[in-house]
Amino acid sequence: MTPVVVRRIDRAEAQAVDALAEFGVSTVHEAMGRDGLMKPYMRPAWAGARVAGTAVTVLAQPGDNWMLHVAVEFCRPGDILVVGLTADNTDGMFGDLLATSLMARGVRGLVIDAGVRDVASLKEMGFPAWSRAISARGTVKATLGSVNVPVVCAGALVNPGDAVVADDDGVVVVPAGRAPAVAEAARKRAANEEDKRRRLAAGELGRDIYDMRPALEKAGLIYVDRLEDLKR
Amino acid sequence: MTPVVVRRIDRAEAQAVDALAEFGVSTVHEAMGRDGLMKPYMRPAWAGARVAGTAVTVLAQPGDNWMLHVAVEFCRPGDILVVGLTADNTDGMFGDLLATSLMARGVRGLVIDAGVRDVASLKEMGFPAWSRAISARGTVKATLGSVNVPVVCAGALVNPGDAVVADDDGVVVVPAGRAPAVAEAARKRAANEEDKRRRLAAGELGRDIYDMRPALEKAGLIYVDRLEDLKR
Amino acid sequence: MTPVVVRRIDRAEAQAVDALAEFGVSTVHEAMGRDGLMKPYMRPAWAGARVAGTAVTVLAQPGDNWMLHVAVEFCRPGDILVVGLTADNTDGMFGDLLATSLMARGVRGLVIDAGVRDVASLKEMGFPAWSRAISARGTVKATLGSVNVPVVCAGALVNPGDAVVADDDGVVVVPAGRAPAVAEAARKRAANEEDKRRRLAAGELGRDIYDMRPALEKAGLIYVDRLEDLKR
Amino acid sequence: MTPVVVRRIDRAEAQAVDALAEFGVSTVHEAMGRDGLMKPYMRPAWAGARVAGTAVTVLAQPGDNWMLHVAVEFCRPGDILVVGLTADNTDGMFGDLLATSLMARGVRGLVIDAGVRDVASLKEMGFPAWSRAISARGTVKATLGSVNVPVVCAGALVNPGDAVVADDDGVVVVPAGRAPAVAEAARKRAANEEDKRRRLAAGELGRDIYDMRPALEKAGLIYVDRLEDLKR
Amino acid sequence: MTPVVVRRIDRAEAQAVDALAEFGVSTVHEAMGRDGLMKPYMRPAWAGARVAGTAVTVLAQPGDNWMLHVAVEFCRPGDILVVGLTADNTDGMFGDLLATSLMARGVRGLVIDAGVRDVASLKEMGFPAWSRAISARGTVKATLGSVNVPVVCAGALVNPGDAVVADDDGVVVVPAGRAPAVAEAARKRAANEEDKRRRLAAGELGRDIYDMRPALEKAGLIYVDRLEDLKR
Amino acid sequence: MTPVVVRRIDRAEAQAVDALAEFGVSTVHEAMGRDGLMKPYMRPAWAGARVAGTAVTVLAQPGDNWMLHVAVEFCRPGDILVVGLTADNTDGMFGDLLATSLMARGVRGLVIDAGVRDVASLKEMGFPAWSRAISARGTVKATLGSVNVPVVCAGALVNPGDAVVADDDGVVVVPAGRAPAVAEAARKRAANEEDKRRRLAAGELGRDIYDMRPALEKAGLIYVDRLEDLKR
Repeated sequence: MTPVVVRRIDRAEAQAVDALAEFGVSTVHEAMGRDGLMKPYMRPAWAGARVAGTAVTVLAQPGDNWMLHVAVEFCRPGDILVVGLTADNTDGMFGDLLATSLMARGVRGLVIDAGVRDVASLKEMGFPAWSRAISARGTVKATLGSVNVPVVCAGALVNPGDAVVADDDGVVVVPAGRAPAVAEAARKRAANEEDKRRRLAAGELGRDIYDMRPALEKAGLIYVDRLEDLKR
Repeated sequence: MTPVVVRRIDRAEAQAVDALAEFGVSTVHEAMGRDGLMKPYMRPAWAGARVAGTAVTVLAQPGDNWMLHVAVEFCRPGDILVVGLTADNTDGMFGDLLATSLMARGVRGLVIDAGVRDVASLKEMGFPAWSRAISARGTVKATLGSVNVPVVCAGALVNPGDAVVADDDGVVVVPAGRAPAVAEAARKRAANEEDKRRRLAAGELGRDIYDMRPALEKAGLIYVDRLEDLKR
Repeated sequence: MTPVVVRRIDRAEAQAVDALAEFGVSTVHEAMGRDGLMKPYMRPAWAGARVAGTAVTVLAQPGDNWMLHVAVEFCRPGDILVVGLTADNTDGMFGDLLATSLMARGVRGLVIDAGVRDVASLKEMGFPAWSRAISARGTVKATLGSVNVPVVCAGALVNPGDAVVADDDGVVVVPAGRAPAVAEAARKRAANEEDKRRRLAAGELGRDIYDMRPALEKAGLIYVDRLEDLKR
Repeated sequence: MTPVVVRRIDRAEAQAVDALAEFGVSTVHEAMGRDGLMKPYMRPAWAGARVAGTAVTVLAQPGDNWMLHVAVEFCRPGDILVVGLTADNTDGMFGDLLATSLMARGVRGLVIDAGVRDVASLKEMGFPAWSRAISARGTVKATLGSVNVPVVCAGALVNPGDAVVADDDGVVVVPAGRAPAVAEAARKRAANEEDKRRRLAAGELGRDIYDMRPALEKAGLIYVDRLEDLKR
Repeated sequence: MTPVVVRRIDRAEAQAVDALAEFGVSTVHEAMGRDGLMKPYMRPAWAGARVAGTAVTVLAQPGDNWMLHVAVEFCRPGDILVVGLTADNTDGMFGDLLATSLMARGVRGLVIDAGVRDVASLKEMGFPAWSRAISARGTVKATLGSVNVPVVCAGALVNPGDAVVADDDGVVVVPAGRAPAVAEAARKRAANEEDKRRRLAAGELGRDIYDMRPALEKAGLIYVDRLEDLKR
Repeated sequence: MTPVVVRRIDRAEAQAVDALAEFGVSTVHEAMGRDGLMKPYMRPAWAGARVAGTAVTVLAQPGDNWMLHVAVEFCRPGDILVVGLTADNTDGMFGDLLATSLMARGVRGLVIDAGVRDVASLKEMGFPAWSRAISARGTVKATLGSVNVPVVCAGALVNPGDAVVADDDGVVVVPAGRAPAVAEAARKRAANEEDKRRRLAAGELGRDIYDMRPALEKAGLIYVDRLEDLKR
């Protein structure tokens, strides 16, 4: 691994990114064909935020947040800082000072496959962060990593400039080039769900709305009055 | 495993179930003789709910929520949907559409040994759910399971119709036939605790209230002024 | 292990302990030279509390809270009860009754390398608790442990009387004798951070504030416009 | 939970049980319709054993092996001792003394949802054991459990007398009444696999042997020479 | 995700791949600049194998091994089948039949971010496999994935054709284009280590061989006769 | 934490340490009163070794094995190197070069709360190592720790000079001063077990040998012929 900082990246289209934020992680993940989801151990430091932004990526060493400081310079309004690690780590690599710096540059959030700290302050500041852990454990600034290279973060491949959507359900990555199409697919899916929601709220059965009977029958589902009846 | 749906089940008595909800999981678990508790990885999707209901059970395949849709038809007001899995899984098998459907039928909550999603919406809707994970990861509808058969959920055996109590402390299962007796035992326990709470709040020592001295002495507990005194 | 209760311990100086509470876990942990932190699986039962106190320690058997009851007698206002276990355990060894008893004695919180229960009540009462799990599972009172001996709790060594600081970021232990010096170091660190926070909020780069350029250059960091440029 | 020892149980037919041992866990699990498998954290204390036997069940308290001693009296030649726990635990509840006792009674192995110890001796003695952990941590004999009641062990429901098959792949439970049918299904499956194994060894493709092409095509699988071709 | 099979891939140079096998995972990982390592939960199904090969990649759905069967056709002698999953899974997706098929085609091993089964047979056959779990749990053939697309496997990005090295220490991935250079670097490193090994075996201190004194002194390491001396 | 190397430590008496090795971890742990055991995630890199030695301790930073190199100088024949970490870590901090160096000084083994690598070589060399992981991941030599200070390793407090016993069952620590008494207690326990082993092998029930009947009866154990009888 040659430590490198890449200055220029191609970001997903802003309008598409903003549209993705409306629909949230679960809908966007479905709209992509159930792809791009980070592992469910990624949780928000505080509940209730929903953001989408373009990824500025960092590949960092465990327990070392040097490259996060380096990356700040390359962040623009609308970005989300996405940090992958070279090895599993839960140290608190990000706290309120870095958050202050990112907010000053218009960054919308942080996604890190390690720990964060100062979570009470992050909540107060309204800066959202998704991480695998909360930990006060401090870090050093000793070993180089990279900025704006492709990284694996919580099991998902993230290229610089990709759209990243995060909320209470987790984090999903949309390749930059697919962002407009996925936003459109998400819009359709959401509209379609609205109709289903109304019918389900009115008491209709999903079994009927989705017309599941033929497939269930074909698959061999048996209905009995009592479990004992099965054994006859 | 023959996939089967059982239409008729014997539910725990409604009055006993409602009484159990008053006392909460920890008290009910004690009242049962410290039995029936699901593993502590089962956590509420949002904090603050306390419910009790009768179990409609689902045995589902990992990453497949087909049978949850099938089960809805057999739910009645006062039920809780309890979903066991044939293998460990954290996928988001339950979201706001299924919650809408269950609410329309008067179901009081969901207990699932897998993941849920749309958790911000579930909180807004006031539909409580206990799960092992929160995950946006979508599911398929491809492989059959069963409805209203005995299932193992988070390490606990649940028979259809059993009383299920869930709150911020976790989830406990009370066999249908024992529900009235357990509710009564819980009532006694709670009353007894109330008295102890008053005495403890007034500064009395639990050691005296529970009369622990003789047993501690018999077990051989030593008191010293300083640790060094022990070594003399 | 001889089960023993030690009656007299030397507590960290009250003023220093109170000062530590102001700064919180992350700052105190740094002020100590990044030492004394409990493992990050220790989480608050409810968010938002920040406390510091002097440790009354308990070494308890898994699933047995007998010694917690014994320890209450030796707690004073300003203490925090710290419970280490002889083996990994998640049972709910602490609930609202014990909390009532501790509050009556002016104890500021609980730190336990096991589970707690009645978490809704603990929140209502305002009694803060940090634990590795939330579990309704009840405990017995059958096997002795010790009170006020050195214990390992969540990977950290705690001596009776040590200062313990806990908040949403976790739990840190400060040896009693070092408390005043650490409080002073934390004060300086916090003051220093305040200045940096202002500069970062104004848009200055951490890279410049911390003067990172020479070290980055020396370490060999390369900047390129495009990743492809690296391979030339 | 009333602590109880049940003296008489109905064991799966010996001939069927012995037949199951021939085929091993993976084949038996498939022959049952992919059911009855314990969670994969259950591992053999030493590799290379394959056994099948009839379950004598124990419900034990964590860290307490009293009921294992009680259960020995009710074991017969051909049995396997299956121990479920009332809560997660890794203590070494079983060692070479209990193994000596079980071997003297013709018991074929141990399956325990906790820890075992003396594993070097167990290997030397040739007594096979499957457990969730290896741990020297000793246990007490203080709290009652039950013998020969239904237990949940590593996520699987085990009734006394059920056939239990265990090898390097894990542990599977076959309800006593189904043992003969499952043994027969396993025999057929193994025979069928033998033929496939020969064809695969000769270089035939599974895709052809299993005639997968039509289903793959129907599902929409695309073949391209180069990944770039997909995007055209 | 469009399910796709890519027929033609560019494999790392055979000679370089074979050279990598000589040095093993730890040396190759160092020779790459400590990069490309899969997470340490990847363990061999049986100990003692060391292989290197070129990756044929599969992106598979949890609990579904359909695409493994599809991939066989595209394997050549010298390949290693590398399977990434779309979600965490421990099911036994690979057993002795697939191993027979791969061996017939000259494939050198399997690396899968899920479970394997028939491990006793795999050992007997001498077919090495690295996985995150051993599990008898069977799989379906219901949902498409892809063959020969880039996959994330156990946290590492694997492109089709990359060199993969695996032994008792784990699994490391070398990008196809870098294989010759890494093999050469590994050769140098191994030669260098041989000299150090001789000196260390003769009793020389690593501290002297690596000339650590100046750096230790500069970092501020203190030597005392007794710990008490530190506090003076 | 002031980084410090302590040159002189008081080792447990050699004869007692050697005696402890005879009895193994489980017996020694019992002889201590079930104390001093490291967590069960500590596993041998290869099976079959049993050693006891005196602890030279290292407090190391995650992913940094600098202090292990420093510690070698202070090791004597009969020692075991015990490494605690300042934070959870699985990196391969120890391999065959360090093992060569330790063997040259007569060190009997390694106990590390992190990862080891070169495990095939370690086995070949006959150098035993207990660790929480096997990982090829390399380490840096950048941050100081300490040598021969008290450390917490896998949940157990280890003082320099303590006796450490390790085998396939795990690792146990005996305070230096207690080593002779614990060795004697272990000898008695082993002798006593030998007699029990003979009686159990002859078919006697543990229930009778340990005279459990009165206690079981007093605790309220009920015997029934059939489970149904309980409910009458």
